[in-house]
Amino acid sequence: MVTKLGLVPAEPPRSRRALRPDLRPKRLAILGATGSIGRSCAQVIAFAPGRFAVASVAGGRDGAALARCAIELNAEFAAVADPAGYGDLKAGLAGTGVEAAAGPEAVREAALREADLVVSAIVGAAGLGPTFAAVAAGRTVALANKETLVCAGAAVMQTARRAGAMLLPMDSEHNALFQAMGAREPETIEVMTITASGGPFREWSAERIANATPEEALAHPNWVMGPKVTIDSAGLMNKGLELIEAHFLFGVPPDRLEVVVHPQSIVHGLIAFADGSLIAGMASPDMRTPIAHCLAYPDRMASGVRPPDLAALGRLTFERADLQRFPALGIAIEALRAGGGAPTALNAANEIAVAAFLARRIGFGEIARLVGRTISAMDAAEELAAPQDVAQALAIHHIAGERMKRLLA
Amino acid sequence: MVTKLGLVPAEPPRSRRALRPDLRPKRLAILGATGSIGRSCAQVIAFAPGRFAVASVAGGRDGAALARCAIELNAEFAAVADPAGYGDLKAGLAGTGVEAAAGPEAVREAALREADLVVSAIVGAAGLGPTFAAVAAGRTVALANKETLVCAGAAVMQTARRAGAMLLPMDSEHNALFQAMGAREPETIEVMTITASGGPFREWSAERIANATPEEALAHPNWVMGPKVTIDSAGLMNKGLELIEAHFLFGVPPDRLEVVVHPQSIVHGLIAFADGSLIAGMASPDMRTPIAHCLAYPDRMASGVRPPDLAALGRLTFERADLQRFPALGIAIEALRAGGGAPTALNAANEIAVAAFLARRIGFGEIARLVGRTISAMDAAEELAAPQDVAQALAIHHIAGERMKRLLA
Repeated sequence: MVTKLGLVPAEPPRSRRALRPDLRPKRLAILGATGSIGRSCAQVIAFAPGRFAVASVAGGRDGAALARCAIELNAEFAAVADPAGYGDLKAGLAGTGVEAAAGPEAVREAALREADLVVSAIVGAAGLGPTFAAVAAGRTVALANKETLVCAGAAVMQTARRAGAMLLPMDSEHNALFQAMGAREPETIEVMTITASGGPFREWSAERIANATPEEALAHPNWVMGPKVTIDSAGLMNKGLELIEAHFLFGVPPDRLEVVVHPQSIVHGLIAFADGSLIAGMASPDMRTPIAHCLAYPDRMASGVRPPDLAALGRLTFERADLQRFPALGIAIEALRAGGGAPTALNAANEIAVAAFLARRIGFGEIARLVGRTISAMDAAEELAAPQDVAQALAIHHIAGERMKRLLA
Repeated sequence: MVTKLGLVPAEPPRSRRALRPDLRPKRLAILGATGSIGRSCAQVIAFAPGRFAVASVAGGRDGAALARCAIELNAEFAAVADPAGYGDLKAGLAGTGVEAAAGPEAVREAALREADLVVSAIVGAAGLGPTFAAVAAGRTVALANKETLVCAGAAVMQTARRAGAMLLPMDSEHNALFQAMGAREPETIEVMTITASGGPFREWSAERIANATPEEALAHPNWVMGPKVTIDSAGLMNKGLELIEAHFLFGVPPDRLEVVVHPQSIVHGLIAFADGSLIAGMASPDMRTPIAHCLAYPDRMASGVRPPDLAALGRLTFERADLQRFPALGIAIEALRAGGGAPTALNAANEIAVAAFLARRIGFGEIARLVGRTISAMDAAEELAAPQDVAQALAIHHIAGERMKRLLA
């Protein structure tokens, strides 16, 4: 019935979908609970009281911080990887009833506690072992740790298929791609594109980039992230690692993977199809969105982040990635195309180089150059064979790291 | 193996996916073969020789044009709705072996010929009957005809559910939304947004719009379409009709449907979720993309249209829809919210008003005003009850059309 025809407000009221009540809380294991992603997870969990129960948390070194996390999340078990952190963890948990443990085996135990979803958010190669263990046990794993796929992508995916494990990408780019894919078969994908904000050096000259300081490289315009990821972003190495991840995760061949620079960080990933369709995954640059997507999957939940308001934003801009000024991306793409152990070596060499840059031992421009030299110096047949398991991946990781250290010495 | 590390080209070569060979050609019934969508269908079909077989074609008045279509598509049966076109159709098909027939029953027969997919692309209420027949017969129907859903959305969807018919949206906006939805449940959708190019009057004053000529209204900046749709686009009535379509097609309530102006016509539809994710369906403004998507669904095929190259485009802009300058959109949204027979009446009144404008009998500004007056004048309880079938929908259509004609007289 139309009683009064006329103008309606430009913005109709948005009704919120009532959260579908779960029968029982979803049990989570959170590996990397004290890190940037782990903290955002806690924020999202706090948004939906009663919806989640935390079976276990694991952290790297800081026992006191991990104890605070465990208490905040009402976790049953807390594991700190570095035994030196055990004292603080134990002290922090005194009288709480939360179990405390330390060492790599304890982190593995945290990964294998009975849970519906394992959040893998330990930064660096340290996350590889526990994540692989959860995958091999057939768990559903939300992957924020890039190294698992970059270091041992083929082995992880094969193990996941065998064990019936489901991988949910928690990185903003891969999460966007996962959502954009819907239920489609990867064979129908023509081109998969990952966006790059361009980082703090997007408009800098090659020379200025080469001489950038850690402070300059850490000043990311859009994202608040850990220091390693932020440095990777500044040189676009991050995008190279993400292309490698996407290759393994979605089964898309290297020549169908692309990077486009998009300074606003609203569009995170795009999938093009043969008919000319292009499906984009967007969100505000806030990790709570992909985290909430993974935590609630296949349902949805509020994350505290609103969808981008495109009319308020006004415009989204795009430019090609400049491999002259950002050679790290080119080197990563070569490693992706080379395959085998090259991505593993790339990642290991990069970890050491970024640490050396943050310690002011090398300039920013040296990171890509030395990573390239490290991989070039490795014996293709013997040292860069495709890793079949974690041990082989860690072996390549170790060799590449040693070579990089030698270059740095 | 990494043999040579260094730069790679900015644009990696794009390998084309080999078309998956079908076991037998997909059989199509094309209703509205001589129109704008029908012609684009023919172009897409020509792109994949042997992939499709055309069971039937149907057209409105032009028997000679329909005969040419039937020959080009190697159709088995051709039906012209207007019996006056039969002579030309018969003459055009002489000696070809293509069956010719005329009248509404013949069009219905074309819709019901054995086919895997019925393309419903007859403009206006004339498409309602044959489309409804195909839906009731449980066929898979690619819908380019807006009126089917606008006039009788609830009845069509109910019939489709009962008959097990699948509807594939062929409109660029709804096709983009359909692709962006993937396999998700409509209940998880927070807001569904349809974009509007803003048409030729996007930056015009209200007064200048009200006095626009048919030539000015027909000069759409991005799309080449039939005249009725182009006029609807100029006043944003088109977007109102599309919101109504989306409401029925996707089961999204009126208060979760929005319009945003996007002059480049690259993003066609967006779906926002509670966690802040926003999935966008993009494509160049070329009907061959949604057509190819529907024709090949659930597979994919090349359409002759490349996915948008965002880096080449540089930017995408967005602005709020201005209901003061484009009152037709506001009136359509009111009809959507009112429900029942209001959308049916809106559509009927608009058809007559657009024809009167094209015939220079009324000004552009009169279209929305008279449509609003027509619906307001109708008796809510008696004349605007929700149509339960085609007959009831056509009855409301007739009454609203008569009232509009009286206003025009």
